[in-house]
Amino acid sequence: MAFPCLDAIEDRTQRLHSERQSSQSQSSRQSRKATSTSSSSSPHTSVSGPEPSYTSGATQRYHCEEPLRLDWGGVLPGFDVAYETWGTLNSDRSNAILLHTGLSASSHAHSTELNPAPGWWESFIGPGPGFALDTSKYFVICTNVLGGCYGSTGPSSIDPADGKPYATRFPILTMEDMVRAQFRLLDALRVERLYASVGSSMGGMQSLAAGVLFPDRVGKIVSISGCARSHPYSIAMRHTQRQVLMMDPNWNRGFYYDTIPPHAGMKLAREIATVTYRSGPEWEQRFGRRRADVNKPPALCPDFLIETYLDHAGEKFCLTYDPNSLLYVSKAMDLFDLGAAHQERSAQRRSEREAAEKISAATNNVASAVCSLTLPDQPYEEMSAASSSSAPGTDDHVASMMPGAPSWQPPQDLVRGLSVLRNHPTLVMGVASDILFPAWQQYEVAEALKMAGNRNVSHYELSEQQSMFGHDTFLLDLKNIGGNVRNFLG
Amino acid sequence: MAFPCLDAIEDRTQRLHSERQSSQSQSSRQSRKATSTSSSSSPHTSVSGPEPSYTSGATQRYHCEEPLRLDWGGVLPGFDVAYETWGTLNSDRSNAILLHTGLSASSHAHSTELNPAPGWWESFIGPGPGFALDTSKYFVICTNVLGGCYGSTGPSSIDPADGKPYATRFPILTMEDMVRAQFRLLDALRVERLYASVGSSMGGMQSLAAGVLFPDRVGKIVSISGCARSHPYSIAMRHTQRQVLMMDPNWNRGFYYDTIPPHAGMKLAREIATVTYRSGPEWEQRFGRRRADVNKPPALCPDFLIETYLDHAGEKFCLTYDPNSLLYVSKAMDLFDLGAAHQERSAQRRSEREAAEKISAATNNVASAVCSLTLPDQPYEEMSAASSSSAPGTDDHVASMMPGAPSWQPPQDLVRGLSVLRNHPTLVMGVASDILFPAWQQYEVAEALKMAGNRNVSHYELSEQQSMFGHDTFLLDLKNIGGNVRNFLG
Repeated sequence: MAFPCLDAIEDRTQRLHSERQSSQSQSSRQSRKATSTSSSSSPHTSVSGPEPSYTSGATQRYHCEEPLRLDWGGVLPGFDVAYETWGTLNSDRSNAILLHTGLSASSHAHSTELNPAPGWWESFIGPGPGFALDTSKYFVICTNVLGGCYGSTGPSSIDPADGKPYATRFPILTMEDMVRAQFRLLDALRVERLYASVGSSMGGMQSLAAGVLFPDRVGKIVSISGCARSHPYSIAMRHTQRQVLMMDPNWNRGFYYDTIPPHAGMKLAREIATVTYRSGPEWEQRFGRRRADVNKPPALCPDFLIETYLDHAGEKFCLTYDPNSLLYVSKAMDLFDLGAAHQERSAQRRSEREAAEKISAATNNVASAVCSLTLPDQPYEEMSAASSSSAPGTDDHVASMMPGAPSWQPPQDLVRGLSVLRNHPTLVMGVASDILFPAWQQYEVAEALKMAGNRNVSHYELSEQQSMFGHDTFLLDLKNIGGNVRNFLG
Repeated sequence: MAFPCLDAIEDRTQRLHSERQSSQSQSSRQSRKATSTSSSSSPHTSVSGPEPSYTSGATQRYHCEEPLRLDWGGVLPGFDVAYETWGTLNSDRSNAILLHTGLSASSHAHSTELNPAPGWWESFIGPGPGFALDTSKYFVICTNVLGGCYGSTGPSSIDPADGKPYATRFPILTMEDMVRAQFRLLDALRVERLYASVGSSMGGMQSLAAGVLFPDRVGKIVSISGCARSHPYSIAMRHTQRQVLMMDPNWNRGFYYDTIPPHAGMKLAREIATVTYRSGPEWEQRFGRRRADVNKPPALCPDFLIETYLDHAGEKFCLTYDPNSLLYVSKAMDLFDLGAAHQERSAQRRSEREAAEKISAATNNVASAVCSLTLPDQPYEEMSAASSSSAPGTDDHVASMMPGAPSWQPPQDLVRGLSVLRNHPTLVMGVASDILFPAWQQYEVAEALKMAGNRNVSHYELSEQQSMFGHDTFLLDLKNIGGNVRNFLG
């Protein structure tokens, strides 16, 4: 049997190795002339270099000299935030909208003079009342997240301590760390208060987190296909992506920057992610059970159209995003929880550390983010086949904990955690066909806000009849997503 | 940062290598005494050998000397079917029930004298009116599928042509091929007609296929959490499992039987599969956002409980199932389609081949199952962000093709394909929380049967309130699944 899908992977490995060798011999010639060459000097290069082309295009860059203390104990002595803007900041600096991205996106939400390529929300942003974000009224700012690989400081950045990439020496990040970095940028832009914080997917988490962390600096909040705390199913989906990536021998525990990247693992991770981004009904209509060539016998390598689609999605992504950024940003999503207890624990960790720092003076704490496996002593056992229908989770046990059930209420811990937003006009949107951020999570956010006393909560759920694009709906649906954002921002 | 999850994989690789070496030196000593050692002679060995322990216990074995011509062109010159039985065949041989398994299961549905370990449907099978399958009334037969690794002929079996394991020289299989092998066993047992064909998951596919292939030899049909044709979303889920497995260097394009198996790829594949077997609400209740140790900092290796659960599920499976069997059986599920057009094409291929065989006499066709990648010339492009709400798949476009919508009807092709079952009493069950075989697929089967004129179709869908165990509900829910099967068999 032939395995062309494996041949393709092996060919790319070989190509990357030989390209790397030829670029090394080139750069050793060049290094006689210049001391350093920056990979970010050539944005938009086709993916042919020995290392991934991480830039998505030219951006503005904010450099912060102030150290950033992170939620889980690391410290970045300084950091960059890549960003882009559209529209004009008005005289009283009151019309700024901070747009938060999904995991895969750069700051390039819309084309700019510096980078005319279409952005990921190209049709949603523009001058005039027809656009979701009207740039004749608003000054729209979009950043690349901290931990990312499109210009902001992340695992592929150089650690000033030793001049080498951080790799997996980079500290664990949280959504809140990313938001704090964004607000340093707002300080620099002298934006004291946002007109609105807007985001989808991971950005929908950050949009809420911005309000919770800086309630006085945020006006309206829009959270689309996001959540207030990660759900174990989403964690499971991201876990499998991280595992396939880390299992690629080329990942080398994160230290691949001077050799070839784990492109095979990245391809697999993206294929799994793509499954979670779309929905069954869309694929039923688009691909059905069609095979690429019905006259050929079936193969273990891709032969159904849906398989070639996934294969192609993996191919497109595997060299354009930094694998370590995927791990850190994905993990930060897992750790997200706006419940009160979690917020309080984080605050306590931060204050304990600050106290300790005062005692032991200014030590660099980055290395203290030591991670170790924390498996329980007793491994999990699947429920045995003998377990009867009286198992918890059947019938009445379920009914009360399912959002939407008559007796269901959002957890008090979440109501308390979101109560600081009780006066913020908030738009929460979800999509019934979304399996990654299921619609009950947005319902939970809306109900928790209402329970906290917020009378300005708008909640829309797009039915399966309105959209079968699943999680990706926020990228596609101008009418329902774009229209509601436009109406809400007013 | 520490990576104990990778350490564990590397430790196992090393252990398997060293165990293999010591067993080789042992067996070279033994081979002076005996000419062959059979690995199946030691069922129930703990998983410590150099090769996976494929047996799940002692079974009965049927050997068929008659060649089996396969749907996609291969021929097995002879084959084994491992099986187990419970109850007693009555004098007119009219009380046999053929029980079809899911992908992971062996023939060990219930404990036997030969193998007292509990089976995968232990509580559903037993003597008395309280059991789903009453062994005081019925003679229950369960087989390991063709292509499997628990005693039936599969990729790990020896090819009589050269005395070596088939590996990926094994021909592509279909559900129908597996059913034909089962009916050879029924011939041997002199069971002319089944009282019922019963199955869940993949077995739910086979249960329908048995009726379609041998309508005169099947009485009643029970199909639980199965389908009449694989859906692209399920194909996508299985595709990612096959890809992570094939990407493991130890897979070695299928030829690992004389070295160590791709245990890392198998672990990953099982983790992905486990995500598709359960449901979000169950995990929310069971694991929530709990971490194994809240006092330790987060890690990139598993630290949420849901992650350690998936990790453990992968660990348990990675050495107990033959990786090549997983690929072949999983692929056979993708290829399943009881639509009339597909059935007609299969029949035509078979008749063309038989005609060709008559001409070129008795050549061994196993090697003719050549597989090659059949990628289309144009790669797939994701829908661009600029596509508007008029994209197909939003609003009205969707409504008519969604099962359950007012105007929806099952595809005529499927109605035609299932019309041979118009007189078979049929029970079709689904579970709303199932993402692998979503409930609309069982609804589709039931509606297609009704449209074909069948007035004896019972269809039940377990709501999310009745079960949040997703696809695995068929293994767990004695009350709703077991009870309905019992009532239907009568």
